[in-house]
Amino acid sequence: MTESDNNLARAFATESINASKNAMRALKAEKDGRGNEAKLFRALASGQQVHANKALMLLRGRIDDTDTNLSAASQAIDLAIETYRATIMTAATDRATAIESSFIHFMKTARNHKMILDQVNTSDGVYHVCQICGFIAQGEVPERCPVCRAVPQQFEAIT
Amino acid sequence: MTESDNNLARAFATESINASKNAMRALKAEKDGRGNEAKLFRALASGQQVHANKALMLLRGRIDDTDTNLSAASQAIDLAIETYRATIMTAATDRATAIESSFIHFMKTARNHKMILDQVNTSDGVYHVCQICGFIAQGEVPERCPVCRAVPQQFEAIT
Repeated sequence: MTESDNNLARAFATESINASKNAMRALKAEKDGRGNEAKLFRALASGQQVHANKALMLLRGRIDDTDTNLSAASQAIDLAIETYRATIMTAATDRATAIESSFIHFMKTARNHKMILDQVNTSDGVYHVCQICGFIAQGEVPERCPVCRAVPQQFEAIT
Repeated sequence: MTESDNNLARAFATESINASKNAMRALKAEKDGRGNEAKLFRALASGQQVHANKALMLLRGRIDDTDTNLSAASQAIDLAIETYRATIMTAATDRATAIESSFIHFMKTARNHKMILDQVNTSDGVYHVCQICGFIAQGEVPERCPVCRAVPQQFEAIT
């Protein structure tokens, strides 16, 4: 990533977090009978989501041909694994358990994603994705997610 | 932001970009008649979006009472302005025009958001948000967005 992309990514993350927080703050204000503040927080969330979406579009950049895309997707997973590792290492004490348990699952599913990418030529194109941890099952939905133990109802079929 | 939050934010941005790219790569593969690869990219996008959503949830943290939230929302805008400034400064040459024009708009709307926050006590709670640049109009929809010149149809009413 260039320094420009790093800053764009930071702007994207900042605005996504702000939009997400303000959407939650709107619910809190609503619950406390402060309707005008609830609307204000929803307006801020909407405006900030516009900023986040635009930053993501600028970050996404150019899409290549499919063979180049397959290898770029694989390399991107390696980089993502590095960010997971860093996140687990620095997990703040109060939220360490939640962060660790999620990100250890993410590491496992990232390796699973790499394997799925390697097998695309022999795949029958049937995929189901665990909406709890991101694990991709080829073919049938498993009885339990092998990474997070989620039940079959948590799997989304890819059409 | 703590180092832990920085890493979480980086993991969030990385996975959001990966999911967004893979969704686009799926469209490209579909167009080229490579259906299995299209499904694979959609499966990866789905799994990576699960990771991004979880990271955002962990980043969002605790929501305070409404008065604390109003001042936190205002402070967060100041931090966002810093990331816009940095993004404009380092805009990569090839995309500099697109990044600059968007982020100069974002700076203007962020100042507009601060003003809207300051006026919440005297507001009638009617807001419309420009879905092109994020500008928040109080009361009626303007004939043109004062920041990006968008037409009234681009404004979303906050209910």
